[in-house]
Amino acid sequence: MPNVHAVVMAGGSGTRFWPASRQRMPKQLLPLAGRPGETLIAATVRRLAPLIPPERVWVATGARLADATAAELPGVPRAQILAEPVPRNTAPCIAWATATIARAHPDAVVAVLPADHFIADEPGFREVLARALKTAEAGWLTTIGIVPTRPETGYGYIEIGDPIADGAHAVARFVEKPTRDRAEAFVAGGKHLWNAGMFFFRTGPMMTAIQQHLPALAARVAEICDEASLARVFPGLQAISIDKGVMEKADRIAVVPGSFGWNDVGSWEVTWELAAHDAQGNAVPEGTITVDATGNLVRDLSSGGARRRFALVGVRDLVIVETDDAVLVIPRERAQDVRAVVDELRARGETDKL
Amino acid sequence: MPNVHAVVMAGGSGTRFWPASRQRMPKQLLPLAGRPGETLIAATVRRLAPLIPPERVWVATGARLADATAAELPGVPRAQILAEPVPRNTAPCIAWATATIARAHPDAVVAVLPADHFIADEPGFREVLARALKTAEAGWLTTIGIVPTRPETGYGYIEIGDPIADGAHAVARFVEKPTRDRAEAFVAGGKHLWNAGMFFFRTGPMMTAIQQHLPALAARVAEICDEASLARVFPGLQAISIDKGVMEKADRIAVVPGSFGWNDVGSWEVTWELAAHDAQGNAVPEGTITVDATGNLVRDLSSGGARRRFALVGVRDLVIVETDDAVLVIPRERAQDVRAVVDELRARGETDKL
Repeated sequence: MPNVHAVVMAGGSGTRFWPASRQRMPKQLLPLAGRPGETLIAATVRRLAPLIPPERVWVATGARLADATAAELPGVPRAQILAEPVPRNTAPCIAWATATIARAHPDAVVAVLPADHFIADEPGFREVLARALKTAEAGWLTTIGIVPTRPETGYGYIEIGDPIADGAHAVARFVEKPTRDRAEAFVAGGKHLWNAGMFFFRTGPMMTAIQQHLPALAARVAEICDEASLARVFPGLQAISIDKGVMEKADRIAVVPGSFGWNDVGSWEVTWELAAHDAQGNAVPEGTITVDATGNLVRDLSSGGARRRFALVGVRDLVIVETDDAVLVIPRERAQDVRAVVDELRARGETDKL
Repeated sequence: MPNVHAVVMAGGSGTRFWPASRQRMPKQLLPLAGRPGETLIAATVRRLAPLIPPERVWVATGARLADATAAELPGVPRAQILAEPVPRNTAPCIAWATATIARAHPDAVVAVLPADHFIADEPGFREVLARALKTAEAGWLTTIGIVPTRPETGYGYIEIGDPIADGAHAVARFVEKPTRDRAEAFVAGGKHLWNAGMFFFRTGPMMTAIQQHLPALAARVAEICDEASLARVFPGLQAISIDKGVMEKADRIAVVPGSFGWNDVGSWEVTWELAAHDAQGNAVPEGTITVDATGNLVRDLSSGGARRRFALVGVRDLVIVETDDAVLVIPRERAQDVRAVVDELRARGETDKL
């Protein structure tokens, strides 16, 4: 597919992975799941490569992350790292990226993908991706919906409508994060998919839809043509998601269901789930001494990492994360509560630790 | 008491405080209890000073610890650091130290004290010490017995005999580590004291007692007069404790009971007990973030220590110890099991971590 471009959205802040994640080192720049040492964003670009080579990958990220992001993706041309002066949610991001791509490649088909997710079955993912791109090529604003494996209340859902082509369906409606009861009904009913934030479209139909549903945004994004206009215009754009701003309102919205071991890597608990374990369920550095220790995750990102020896005795289901300047110890089941630590650091003004 | 000398026995290996304690950094050279940053051996010498100034303190330690020990005790003359070529238990150590002191100070009264214990009530300790020295001056081989506060099965006991002077008693007998039942009977009976490994004597009576009960040892120790004779003789000495070799057999053995907050600092659990706690019972570095965390001990001995931020969320009663090359996480109540880690390191041949 020679005319296909990818936009990797890499704007996350990732407080849920403190102390590894920081304002200058967000989740996508960390090796939190998958191949040892491979960052989530590098994996995102690598698994696209058989369909969309890095020369046709664009990355939207925060200005202060642009250099670190470029360093992580040597195959992506530096000019295709789109540095947002301030974060403004996904609609401005996608509008700007689409307009930029359309200028050089007016007939491009664009795949928009989050930078910080994990996918276990990469060939399976590419099959679904190819189907979504084909649907987009036919003029549909297309998304991939993940077949749910549990009644998750933390995601939005997409209700499947009528079939429109091989594996693709019209979208009946987008559904906000449901209650537990509704989520259970969705999983049982088989007509709802997880919204994974992946979007596929020809530049024309997407720009038309933005013009129709977010006309002010479309007009202002059209003014962006260089660094100066970017700095002037971008901060004033309405911070709204592409889901709310466009997808939920537009016509000809399609969804392609997929099951390829998708995971949004939401916490250290997930890192443990996706990691290789020893027989006692410990995901720990090589050489770690464990005595009656089960189900623990140890990640040592300190500069002394490789030569440091961890010893765990009689502890279970703990997360232990070390960097040069911070150490976190938390039960796996409370991994989400790392936010409380970040809140406390912010309240204290310890910005060097954020 | 101008003629009183102290011998501080600093031969311990201290595997119970791994990863802080190492072969080259045993327990007495670590700040495990008491004043912040003060090592146990420095505290031992400091609290003697009102009665026995550092110029009259001798330190018996292993040859490879001599320099580090001297550096820790700037007031102690370097020539008074007695470096044992190999460890040979307390009888050879005390015999050699006593012979060495007697050569320059034939009428000395000697106080032998372990280097790695904690004492909460230092003035109270010095009162008992003065009483023990007075008893020793009168010709008794004297020990201090700690009034027991619990039915401890890990210590030897001393049974009190007839009173002999102000606060001093003859020793009825030394008792090996008792069963739990016997220990409970000892505490209830009020006639048994903990043997804390402190000994007080005039050089003459002690050398006579060694000659009588360990004649081979006495004869060989008399040959030690320089580095060469030390290296030749010391390794061949019988490794036996002063308790078994002399105190349990000699006549005129006295004990002075004492209660001064003595603790042999046997594990990380004890370090936690003796440390300052926050309201939730955490003994952690300043600035540590705690969220629903109670009863934890954190000790960071790494070079980054002061600027590292610990965050404990939802964990209780854990010991977390960090050095530049090792990290230990263990429940407080299992602190003794750190030996298993040291055993594993030894089995693996990871000598740099021992």
